[in-house]
Order: sequence, then C-alpha cells, then structure tokens
Amino acid sequence: MKNMIFKTLGMLVELDRIKKAQSIILKILKEKGRDKLYDLSGLSGGFLIKREDKDLLNTYICSAYFSEKVKELGLKHLGGEECVGFNRTSSAILSTILTLKPKKVVHYLPELPGHPSILRSCKLVNAEYFESNNINEILKRIDKDTLTIITGATMDLKVIDLNNFKIVIKKAKEENSIIFVDDASGARVRLLYNQPRALDLGADLVVTSTDKLMDGPRGGLLSGKKELVEKIYETGLKYGLEAQPPILAGMYRALENFSLERLKKAFERAKNIDLSKLDELNIKYEKTPTGFVIKKIVDNDEENLKKLVNTALYLLEYYGIITITALGAPGASKSLRIDLTSKDAERLDDEYIVNAVYESIIKVR
Amino acid sequence: MKNMIFKTLGMLVELDRIKKAQSIILKILKEKGRDKLYDLSGLSGGFLIKREDKDLLNTYICSAYFSEKVKELGLKHLGGEECVGFNRTSSAILSTILTLKPKKVVHYLPELPGHPSILRSCKLVNAEYFESNNINEILKRIDKDTLTIITGATMDLKVIDLNNFKIVIKKAKEENSIIFVDDASGARVRLLYNQPRALDLGADLVVTSTDKLMDGPRGGLLSGKKELVEKIYETGLKYGLEAQPPILAGMYRALENFSLERLKKAFERAKNIDLSKLDELNIKYEKTPTGFVIKKIVDNDEENLKKLVNTALYLLEYYGIITITALGAPGASKSLRIDLTSKDAERLDDEYIVNAVYESIIKVR
Repeated sequence: MKNMIFKTLGMLVELDRIKKAQSIILKILKEKGRDKLYDLSGLSGGFLIKREDKDLLNTYICSAYFSEKVKELGLKHLGGEECVGFNRTSSAILSTILTLKPKKVVHYLPELPGHPSILRSCKLVNAEYFESNNINEILKRIDKDTLTIITGATMDLKVIDLNNFKIVIKKAKEENSIIFVDDASGARVRLLYNQPRALDLGADLVVTSTDKLMDGPRGGLLSGKKELVEKIYETGLKYGLEAQPPILAGMYRALENFSLERLKKAFERAKNIDLSKLDELNIKYEKTPTGFVIKKIVDNDEENLKKLVNTALYLLEYYGIITITALGAPGASKSLRIDLTSKDAERLDDEYIVNAVYESIIKVR
Repeated sequence: MKNMIFKTLGMLVELDRIKKAQSIILKILKEKGRDKLYDLSGLSGGFLIKREDKDLLNTYICSAYFSEKVKELGLKHLGGEECVGFNRTSSAILSTILTLKPKKVVHYLPELPGHPSILRSCKLVNAEYFESNNINEILKRIDKDTLTIITGATMDLKVIDLNNFKIVIKKAKEENSIIFVDDASGARVRLLYNQPRALDLGADLVVTSTDKLMDGPRGGLLSGKKELVEKIYETGLKYGLEAQPPILAGMYRALENFSLERLKKAFERAKNIDLSKLDELNIKYEKTPTGFVIKKIVDNDEENLKKLVNTALYLLEYYGIITITALGAPGASKSLRIDLTSKDAERLDDEYIVNAVYESIIKVR
C-alpha cells in the first residue's frame, strides 16, 4: 500500500504537498495566530511547557528537576517503583533488550505485525524472536530464558483481550520470565475499556508513548520495578537513549495535563458524532474509535488520492484543520482521518468539523 | 579520584548538596528572576527557543520545520551536504556504527582514553576496536575494512595536532576507509587554533555536541556526505536515536546564536583575567583555556572537598554563580571551575567574578 502511494503520487508531489501545507500553517500562525489552527491529526506533538519551565531549562539544574517531576507524575500514571523518560518508546525498548540480553523474546499482541523496533533490538543481542496473536502458540514458548513482551493496544488502537493478558502474565510468572508491556497507546486506551494498568496486572516493566492520546512530545516513559528500571536507564545513558531535559519538561506538563475524563468524552463524542450530512456526497467513510475517516471521494484510485490530498489542503487553508493527509511524511496513508482526542478538537463543535469536511470535498471534487 | 570523593563526601552528603543548590536556584529564580543567576559551569544546557518556536512545537508541522532549520544552519557550521540532529553525540556514533557495520574501527585521538560510547557501539556489531594517540600505530592498521574515527578535541579540550590529522585522513583516503570525526567540542575549539573544519579537511562525516561551547541543549549534530548521512539518519529513526522537535528547535537557536567572535573573546578573556587578588588567600589555583580553577583551599584533603563545596554553595547563594562544584552529579570533580565561554559570563565583569570567589572563600574558610 505504502509503495503504491509512492508510485502514484511520486516523491516530488509528496514533498510539494508537505511544503504547501507547511506554508499554509506558517501563514495562519503569522496572520491569525495559533488559535485558528486545529490539529485533528491525532499526533499532537504537544509541548505545553510554561514560562518558568523555559527559565529552568536554561540552568544547570534542569535535568535533575524535570527527572523528578516526570518520575512523580509518571508513577501516578503507570504505577511502579521507578519511572524514567526515554527519547522514544523505541529507544526504551532498545535499552531494555540491550540490558536484559534475553536468549529468547516471546511477544504476544492483539493483532500482527508487532512494532519492528522489537525485532531489530533482538537482532542486536542475537535473541531468538517469536511474535503471535495466538495465545496457545505464545504459552508453550515461555520459559525461564524468555523475555515476555505484551502489546496492550496496536497502532490502530486494537486492544488486547484482558483475559488473555492475564493468562500470559500468569504463565510468565510461573516460569520466572520477566514481563515487559509495550503500552504505547494502551496505557490510556485500555483504561477506556476498564482494563487495569499493566503493572497492576503483574508486569515487571511498562513503556508508554507520551505523544499518543496525550499532549506530550514524542517520547517513551518507562516504569516498573526499581532495580530493573535503574539498570535499563543506566544502559540508556551509555548509548544516548534517554530523554533530554526539554523533552522531560514537555512530558511532565503533558502528564499534568492528562485527563481520563477528557479522553472518555472524546470517545463518547466519536461514537455520537452525526455524519449523515456526508451521505449526500456519495463517498466512502467510516467511524473510528476516536473520530472518522474518509477513504474514497471518487472511484478512480489515483484520482482519489489526489482528491483526498487536495481536500486536506483546502480543509487546512480555509478551516485551519490539520490532518495527516496534508502534513504526513511521504508514503503515509492518504485517507482523511479526523481525530477527536486532541486538545484542539475541544475548541470545535461537531457541526463545524463535519461542515468543513463536507465543503472541502465539494470544492475540490 | 572519583571513588575517593564518593568515599570522602558520601552519597547522602552529595545528594544533600545537590538538593540544597537546587533550592537556592529555585529561590533566586522566584524572588529575583533568571537575570540574577550566572551559569559559569561551562555546560550551558541552553534552550533559547522563542515564543514563535513554542507555538510551532504545538503543531504537526514542527518536525519538518525545525529539521530544515537545523540543516540550514548546521551545514554552515560544519560544512557538508546533509546535516541532521541526534538525541546525543553518543547516539549519533551508535547510529553510524550500526549503519556502517565496519569489520574494524581504528580511532586516533590526541589523548587517551577515547569516549566509551565508541567501543560500546563497536561491540554491538562485533567490530574489532583499536584506539591510540600514536600516529604510527594508527596508520599501519587502516585498510579498506576500517572505519577511521578521529577525535578533534578531548573533553579537557586537548586539541589534535593538525599535521597528524591530515596524515591520518590522507592514509584513510588512500585505503578507501570511511573517515568519521568526533568533533564534540573540537568543531569549535579547533577553530580557535585556526584549524579547518573536519569536512573541509576531507572527512566523510563529522559529529558535534550542541551543548559544548555553544548554548544548545545536549544533542548531536551529524553532517557530511549526503548518502551516508541519510542512511545513518534512517537507522537512527528505526532505533529511536534522532533528536525530537523541541531539541531541534533548541539546536537551531543555539546555532543561530553561535558566534566565533564571542568564543574568541572568552578565550582572550580567560588569558587576561587578573587573578592576583586570589594570591592573598594562599590557595592553589590555575588558569584553564576557558577560565580558571581552584583546587585547594585548605591542605587537608577531606576538609578541602567540603570547603570547596561550601564555597560553591556560598557563591551560588550570594552571587548567583552556578558551578559544577555546587550542582554536579554525585562523584563529579569538586575543583571549583569558572568557565567564561557561557553566555552568562558576558553579563559579569572579571572583578565581580574574582571578588565573588574571593569573598566566598573567606566566608567559608
């Protein structure tokens, strides 16, 4: 699929798209201000630091200060005994595997494929790697030489079955296998399905992404048993994998700002949003757990991709709405996704959003 | 030495010191503002982002925008065809070695030992590693299977001999060995000795630290041949080693703010600063390339360490001067170093600094 889009749109067209979208954003920022931009991409890239944080970031004190703050709020968010910040979830995974040097890694997840950073890290330490969404295949492979990895929710927000989660943890505990949960978005999505936190279920380690369903910068927050977290962090420092103070400051403010109530409201809102106006357009759209997605505006595939991009650019220019379709890296999906979990979504009502999408499609079709 | 200090001061005393210094800084920030703090530690940890940068950091555009800005100014600073930001110099080194997977690494440096991140990265790819400051030992080991690493200046600012630098590059070129220069501080220190930039001397790749002799956050800036830099960056993205947008924003502003003239002035200032007032005190002090350092206040070693720490704390509380002695991590050297390359040093005259140190020593001795 990725290659198909590359071929269809071509690299130059892709770069032109990004350049154009960027210039529109800069123009809006300059002429109307940040308030007239609405990031509904679902990837906030938030950086909510305050004036006093910036003052601190210019002093030698900042590293110790923000590490403490992240630990304090991170422990509240994830549970555990010790909590530290990494540059990304991928680097927290790398650091964990470099530290534990397992002979084998068994990875249970609700849907294939697993995140590639796990397999890559395994290769560096010559660990045997097995991933599956079949619980029986998983259970028979866990023993004392295994690092057991569990993914709480996939990139598409497919959530793990709680019963299976518990069964894998029980088996790993019986076998004295260390349990590491990749809860990148799961640490928050799973709460919406009333699932307990990974560490409360008995995991030894959990990592989450501070830019997924919360307003933080890209980063990985690792929590769990003190002795393990400390060792993994020490490895991180050796290879340059830890989060730097400005990122820690952004994580801290995102954790402070995180509200499960707000997230619940967004999920409810996504459930209830009235999309019937779009039916007039004879397009292909569907709801997602966090909003909705438009996949087809016209039948011809190549033409459709171009129309989707143009719709997204129109939506940005005339309604200030930022989507992955307009700004995403070359090769990213061109389906027009509207995500209601971002903070900016709170400043827009459903009618404005649906109408903006409707009008933009009409204009470019 | 490090262990000795640990034993003498004890971990709890060390943590108490840091906590006390932090509370003094927070008090000054709150009551008097950032202007009354002067970071003369030589480790700026700067984060000079502007209001408009922060606005951008809250949008999906920020990654592409700041990558471009860092590239633009990074290429001016280091030369080269492509320039990217990493989370740290250590992670840029890791990414380079993971990408090139050399059979052998030969590392020439002005003084042993080399930075441990190089050896660690070599171990991950099973590369044979050899480091030396003996040029003949180096030359006979370079062949087509070698990655040649050259350190431009050590942590203590010991600078490479330019002639030897050229000889190693010539040999590596003859043997078709890729040349990677670790110019963490060297990219700036070497300019003061009228040495050319590493890439202008013929290196393929160079990395520098954005917090060393410039006002950036900790981070690694990698520049060089386009094809190589692109591959190394791609590896970095895979393992989570790249600099995130807030760090890129800080790097960009630090590069924009960098002035060789300012650095030259600091070096001249360090040469000329009049320390004769300190002679009255019967202490042991000496000049450094970037300032001066007080090593002994009293004869008894254990007593001396405590006095140095107390002097540093007094200097912070009553004169707002931040030093590593007061704020450094447990085990860091307790010699009282004053570094004049930091931006804050420009706001103080020599007399104020020398007098502050003088009075602080008198008070605590």
